[in-house]
Amino acid sequence: MGNQFSFECQARCRHTQARAGTFSTPHGIVETPRFMPVGTLANVKTITPAQLQATGAQMVLANTYHLHLQPGEAIVAGAGGLHQFMGWSGPTLTDSGGFQVFSLSQIRTVNEEGVTFRSPRDGQIIHLTPEKSIAIQNTLGADVIMAFDECPPYPATRELVAAATERTTRWLERCVVTHQRPEQALFGIVQGGVYPDLRQASARSLVAFDLPGYAIGGVSVGEPAELIEQIVKVTTPLLPEEKPRYLMGIGTYREMAQAIAAGIDLFDCVIPTRLARHGNALVQGERWNLKNARFQEDFTPLDPTCDCYTCKVFSRAYLSHLLRSQELLAYTLLSIHNITQLIAFTQRIRAAIIGDRFTTEFAAWLTAAKLPT
Amino acid sequence: MGNQFSFECQARCRHTQARAGTFSTPHGIVETPRFMPVGTLANVKTITPAQLQATGAQMVLANTYHLHLQPGEAIVAGAGGLHQFMGWSGPTLTDSGGFQVFSLSQIRTVNEEGVTFRSPRDGQIIHLTPEKSIAIQNTLGADVIMAFDECPPYPATRELVAAATERTTRWLERCVVTHQRPEQALFGIVQGGVYPDLRQASARSLVAFDLPGYAIGGVSVGEPAELIEQIVKVTTPLLPEEKPRYLMGIGTYREMAQAIAAGIDLFDCVIPTRLARHGNALVQGERWNLKNARFQEDFTPLDPTCDCYTCKVFSRAYLSHLLRSQELLAYTLLSIHNITQLIAFTQRIRAAIIGDRFTTEFAAWLTAAKLPT
Repeated sequence: MGNQFSFECQARCRHTQARAGTFSTPHGIVETPRFMPVGTLANVKTITPAQLQATGAQMVLANTYHLHLQPGEAIVAGAGGLHQFMGWSGPTLTDSGGFQVFSLSQIRTVNEEGVTFRSPRDGQIIHLTPEKSIAIQNTLGADVIMAFDECPPYPATRELVAAATERTTRWLERCVVTHQRPEQALFGIVQGGVYPDLRQASARSLVAFDLPGYAIGGVSVGEPAELIEQIVKVTTPLLPEEKPRYLMGIGTYREMAQAIAAGIDLFDCVIPTRLARHGNALVQGERWNLKNARFQEDFTPLDPTCDCYTCKVFSRAYLSHLLRSQELLAYTLLSIHNITQLIAFTQRIRAAIIGDRFTTEFAAWLTAAKLPT
Repeated sequence: MGNQFSFECQARCRHTQARAGTFSTPHGIVETPRFMPVGTLANVKTITPAQLQATGAQMVLANTYHLHLQPGEAIVAGAGGLHQFMGWSGPTLTDSGGFQVFSLSQIRTVNEEGVTFRSPRDGQIIHLTPEKSIAIQNTLGADVIMAFDECPPYPATRELVAAATERTTRWLERCVVTHQRPEQALFGIVQGGVYPDLRQASARSLVAFDLPGYAIGGVSVGEPAELIEQIVKVTTPLLPEEKPRYLMGIGTYREMAQAIAAGIDLFDCVIPTRLARHGNALVQGERWNLKNARFQEDFTPLDPTCDCYTCKVFSRAYLSHLLRSQELLAYTLLSIHNITQLIAFTQRIRAAIIGDRFTTEFAAWLTAAKLPT
């Protein structure tokens, strides 16, 4: 890890692998555990950086795949890099494009060299390799960049997953060689599908690279939630204590609480903004659809216990009205609330770990039973 | 005028009828001349009240017609009235619905009693009368409410316009009788189409009611811009000096400058948010379409002379990227800028009137020649 990145563990849970830490980056610190909002196309959908900051966001994601297609990394660099382009002065992270290529694109060929796919944007044939992903991410300029990985689907045979996992390690080596900028931290991504021994083999092979951080990828691709917890539990013990651990694409209360108990520090998910666009709010651990008739004349704040702008200023009746009127402001106000809630959840867990109350205060989320959210 | 409303003239132009004033309402003052943003459905499209306040907005509009259809005035009242419902603590104004009924609805019948129309929302048959419009506006609770008028189309025969104008005066009498709340100021609306003598007759008949303010309505319905200036010029001299004057639906630089020269104090228009939704920005007196290829790699602020959030944080290239990505945040950022620009234009005119520089500083906008915006 370069001088510009460090991870300090401030407190450890006595009953689980949970830990409270501080991840330092060139653009500021991330207090862990922490949920990270997703700004796929260099903006968190419908909210401004000023509104995002007020949600408690520290590190924000953007996506290499999407930004390569539009506007192209040269334009982001021309603006002075990702931070300046999107108006976010705090820490940033770019995903490598691996997950998106394998989940969003019409793939033409996958071979040892890389992936050739057809852009859903304009039908253009695009070739992405570990070298190219890292070069794009070096050009974009996020604080944390991710290795280019092969993300197998679910379900998939053991043979297919083993091959993708081994290739991910070989691709990581090419990523490490290509990576040029010490002010960016390259994280490796553990693959291995739902096969515990493949996950562990992947983790061991990645740790040999002594990277500044490690992620668990290829989860939340359709497998049962129980399997995610199991995968995380068998993987984290093999990842170094002194480096941040990031569980990719996860953002429900239960999954985050259980992953934190297994030693995860960072999370990202598009769920808070996606829920908002469907009129849903995270309230008291549940998902409420504000289009529901019962909210039309409900003049209480969305969540009286929430400190976000939406809850301080507006009623459920007003949000219901905006949704029924198809006013876009509804999506902004619900996104602000949902992101605030997910970040606040991880902040409360952090405080509980420091205060030695994690397993008691969050007992309901740590049980195996599937809870509403 | 009740005790809660007053209009103080602070400065007069020596060469025109322009004036700088202060209109006091129960929810604060409006420094005139001033552009008022439109929040049709109790929100200014895509921006929050906090963002709206930062644009310099003082008085904000909402619409009786739209709010009656959704969510209904009872729900707005249940929330504590329009201000609390929409989270705007400053002055508000509701339009009576007259203009919208005559321009947006499928009208079934118009007679002396009122208008019957089919709601474009759900096909429901709705009956609106002067009494009903005022009752709805009393329930909504804006600081300023507007008389229910018959707004003739353009072009229309002198006979048709004369009949609508005389009916508007008879309807005003019913509005005055119905109006119940002294904390709301009822403004009359001058009609008369493009016929100067009908406009003057309308103004004289309205002034007899000694209302707290007067509007000029039925403009910007398709007539040439030159006719609007002419209508305003022949009407304002008949409206009392000590009351605010409001030109409805107008919001271009040239039309506002010329109307201010004729003695107008207040303006409203949906143009800043509508332009934003089409990717257009008001920059240096022009309309720029940010989708234009020339902005893709233009890293300068949208308008380096503008103090709005959008111009302080983002580049033209970023706005171009958001529009090309169909990210809704583009509409928010362009709306913030466009509203800021229109308000700033009226603020600069106000300062120029006070500083005795109006006709020199704004000479370009006061000439008859049609300028770009």
